[in-house]
Amino acid sequence: MMDVNLMNAASQLEKVIRQSDEYKQLRKMYDEVNADPSARAMFENFRRVQMELQQKQMQGQQISQDEVMQAQKTVALVQQNPKISHLMEAEQRMGMIIGELNQLIMKPLEELYGKM
Amino acid sequence: MMDVNLMNAASQLEKVIRQSDEYKQLRKMYDEVNADPSARAMFENFRRVQMELQQKQMQGQQISQDEVMQAQKTVALVQQNPKISHLMEAEQRMGMIIGELNQLIMKPLEELYGKM
Repeated sequence: MMDVNLMNAASQLEKVIRQSDEYKQLRKMYDEVNADPSARAMFENFRRVQMELQQKQMQGQQISQDEVMQAQKTVALVQQNPKISHLMEAEQRMGMIIGELNQLIMKPLEELYGKM
Repeated sequence: MMDVNLMNAASQLEKVIRQSDEYKQLRKMYDEVNADPSARAMFENFRRVQMELQQKQMQGQQISQDEVMQAQKTVALVQQNPKISHLMEAEQRMGMIIGELNQLIMKPLEELYGKM
């Protein structure tokens, strides 16, 4: 089990993430897409296509030209919906924050690996 | 740029990671392997083989029976060295901690995705 200092520091970070403008904005955009049945259906379809491709990629399966085109069409389609494009922008900003946080947290480990 | 509250909470977590018994133990084991030229060479070879296989896997390349056997031999070999096997145990414990921390930090995002 994790020691209590680590647990507390991680819980504190989790709380601050929840309170951040970026997270609040993301939640708001999610709620707006969720409240709009047509945007929601469009976005769910988009996520399904993305996940299928990701899974194929991770399993080392070939992705056909057709599938790439289909995926690009889906992206172009959903981005025309302002609610979805705002959600995607908010997701991107939150993703960058999470990436920066991870980099900070992984610094002690990277220092070790770097020494070898 | 990240807001100052996030930055502070992440820095605090980083500090606590550095102070944790698991991290101190990992650093100690690393230093011991590093200080022993033959263990160090063995471990570096092991990491090289692991990384090559991982890269192949990520690029969706086929991994041959021969390569799998070669990798298994390398693992068996390095685990016979007590310094390396202790280091690998310490890495595993630290990896579990990092995994648990990540789960905690990702909770706010998972809640959003879970709602859809």
